[in-house]
Amino acid sequence: MAIKLDLRRLEAIKSTDHFKILKDKALKYAKEIENDNSIGFTHLPETSRYIEDAETISLKLPDGIDTLLVLGIGGSALGTKMIANCFGEHLKRRLIVLDNVDPDTVKSISKKINPQKTCINVISKSGSTVEPISLFKYFFNLFRENLGEVEALKRTVITTDPEKGNLRKLATSFNILTLEVPQNVGGRFSVLTPVGIFPLYYAGVDVSSILRGALKQKKEGVEQAITGSIVDYMFYTGGKNIKVMFIYSDRLYTFGEWYLQLFAESLGKKVKKNGEEIRIGATGVLAKGVTDQHSQVQLYKEGPDDKLFVFFRLEKKHDVIIPPAFDQDKGFSYLTGKTFGELMFAECEGTIQALENDGRPVILYEMDEITPENMGRLIYLFELQTAVAGFLYGIDPFNQPGVEEGKTIAKKLLGYN
Amino acid sequence: MAIKLDLRRLEAIKSTDHFKILKDKALKYAKEIENDNSIGFTHLPETSRYIEDAETISLKLPDGIDTLLVLGIGGSALGTKMIANCFGEHLKRRLIVLDNVDPDTVKSISKKINPQKTCINVISKSGSTVEPISLFKYFFNLFRENLGEVEALKRTVITTDPEKGNLRKLATSFNILTLEVPQNVGGRFSVLTPVGIFPLYYAGVDVSSILRGALKQKKEGVEQAITGSIVDYMFYTGGKNIKVMFIYSDRLYTFGEWYLQLFAESLGKKVKKNGEEIRIGATGVLAKGVTDQHSQVQLYKEGPDDKLFVFFRLEKKHDVIIPPAFDQDKGFSYLTGKTFGELMFAECEGTIQALENDGRPVILYEMDEITPENMGRLIYLFELQTAVAGFLYGIDPFNQPGVEEGKTIAKKLLGYN
Repeated sequence: MAIKLDLRRLEAIKSTDHFKILKDKALKYAKEIENDNSIGFTHLPETSRYIEDAETISLKLPDGIDTLLVLGIGGSALGTKMIANCFGEHLKRRLIVLDNVDPDTVKSISKKINPQKTCINVISKSGSTVEPISLFKYFFNLFRENLGEVEALKRTVITTDPEKGNLRKLATSFNILTLEVPQNVGGRFSVLTPVGIFPLYYAGVDVSSILRGALKQKKEGVEQAITGSIVDYMFYTGGKNIKVMFIYSDRLYTFGEWYLQLFAESLGKKVKKNGEEIRIGATGVLAKGVTDQHSQVQLYKEGPDDKLFVFFRLEKKHDVIIPPAFDQDKGFSYLTGKTFGELMFAECEGTIQALENDGRPVILYEMDEITPENMGRLIYLFELQTAVAGFLYGIDPFNQPGVEEGKTIAKKLLGYN
Repeated sequence: MAIKLDLRRLEAIKSTDHFKILKDKALKYAKEIENDNSIGFTHLPETSRYIEDAETISLKLPDGIDTLLVLGIGGSALGTKMIANCFGEHLKRRLIVLDNVDPDTVKSISKKINPQKTCINVISKSGSTVEPISLFKYFFNLFRENLGEVEALKRTVITTDPEKGNLRKLATSFNILTLEVPQNVGGRFSVLTPVGIFPLYYAGVDVSSILRGALKQKKEGVEQAITGSIVDYMFYTGGKNIKVMFIYSDRLYTFGEWYLQLFAESLGKKVKKNGEEIRIGATGVLAKGVTDQHSQVQLYKEGPDDKLFVFFRLEKKHDVIIPPAFDQDKGFSYLTGKTFGELMFAECEGTIQALENDGRPVILYEMDEITPENMGRLIYLFELQTAVAGFLYGIDPFNQPGVEEGKTIAKKLLGYN
């Protein structure tokens, strides 16, 4: 299996009655989720149409483009960032994903692009998300000042709802190239829709392999996904309100950011049960291996026993060797001939064992290498796992009612009514 | 005041007896900490000697250097990263801080530097930290292959203990330029020692202003620091085991990383009290405003009431205006003429109020602008606050015994004995 889940010293929980009862439930939920046509994400691995759409749009864009500026936020940005961070060094076009409205960053990005050689992809499912809309106004205006309105419009692609919203209206009025976000897929589950497929395809990522990996995982990985859901459920309900994602790969770090959005928005919910309001949701924390061993491990090891630890590592890689230098000193020579891959692996293993020795719950995902196919697997695995966990908690993993109030207050402060 | 702490709807806790008792204690602890010569960090704002040392070393390095490669991890990297991220776009030399041993990253960095125009600063207080040592072997070898040993040695600066350790021995044997980490300052408190001062000075940061800001904060900011300590203490002991640092500024984001190391290693501890082992420590979580409103706020608002929220924002900035575009649509026109600074501010305020309306504890730091002086203030404020909080908990905020076991296991796995 390309992705291995190792329960390590927790392996014994699999034989408990509690686990077995949850497993039966979770298997049933997974089947329900995959058979429900109103839940879109499970059908995306078989959907090659969005790649064809991406190809069609790409052919209509001007020649000589070397940069795609993606304006989106949350689920409209994180999937693309995740994959771009894995493969960004070897792409045919530069992908810049701008998912904040910090004026310093806006200025800095505007200096890094040449409008003549850049296209804009503005993404908002609702068509009215304030951040991409305000960034779109800014960058469209910049392009218009540099190239004129006709050329600026030619360099624009809108990704939004097929029928509704301000961006859809705009696309129709100005005859702008558009792509559709399917109505049955929420933002955080949308990386395999045009939201992620178009920018990744246009930048040169092998998106077919991503879909192929997702499909393989869908066929082979249900047991792995539900095991993850059950571990989440058991440890959260058992009192661990923090889940640490400890990722031993710089290229996979943004996978962690993508996943923590999926996790937080899907599983952080209030529900009424027997007339009582219950608030649910572990808080995800991202840690970078080995770096955060020198930052957070003191707390993880000696601090309160309130955490579930989920480690990620790659199989040992042997391509970068630590060479001889200053080997007259034993503190230097013991590293000579080792690889950085072995060093990462040993440090990860040392950290895991140190936590386990203190009785902390640890599970480990191991992936053979970072390929588009494996990233497709990861995406599907964690989407399904999250959805099933939601069903175990008895909550709706697909809504996000808690984000509205802040938006409304902000709009009022900006004078919108 | 350049940094304002606003307790917002928590203001009333200041009039409680509990707060007043803690305040008396905390004031006493702050005085003890500042008067104790074995605790080094409080004396760094007055210590200009390290700037002179940085100047001396800089003059001895070869001409034509445009990049400094810093090899350090944890406290030897995070302070420099914090300041470089604030001012990195306007420096006279590029600063690359490599604080991980991921082979993909090592390869990628080695492609980005030209040994002829680069110096290496390897930093390890103990002189035996495995990550900077292995990276040093790799990059020193690369430089030696490109330039010969003599030139490679000329481009090396070692920052380590004044007397002990492998790196100190090496510096003596090979006559390498060195800087000293004072023995009474721990890694996470060391940004104002040669650990941070040399790379920042050499890159062209105005380090004198950083020290001046730290000194002003030391003179004026004790009350602010202890208020922060007391809030930390009260909410952690009151059951909030998670502290969210919600930072509304991309340039300040790495301040959050620096602070969360300081926070975790200083305050995540086990202690014996009346023969019983107690484990202490809130878990810090970093959130980026406005981006994470679309990722984590659903959980923060509707999930469990287990968090203290600490917001950071800058005063409204008016330098980047949202221009007119597509203004026939009201959803676009209401933003026209607003600035991105106002938008950030409104979104921050909206998020804060939405959380407050749900009864979540929120405090807010506001800074007028990002300057070296203000960064000096921030550094001192949070160092003192953290130390005082440690004393309130009755723990030693200056040690980190919990990190050793994992290191030992990793070394064994690598064949060191």
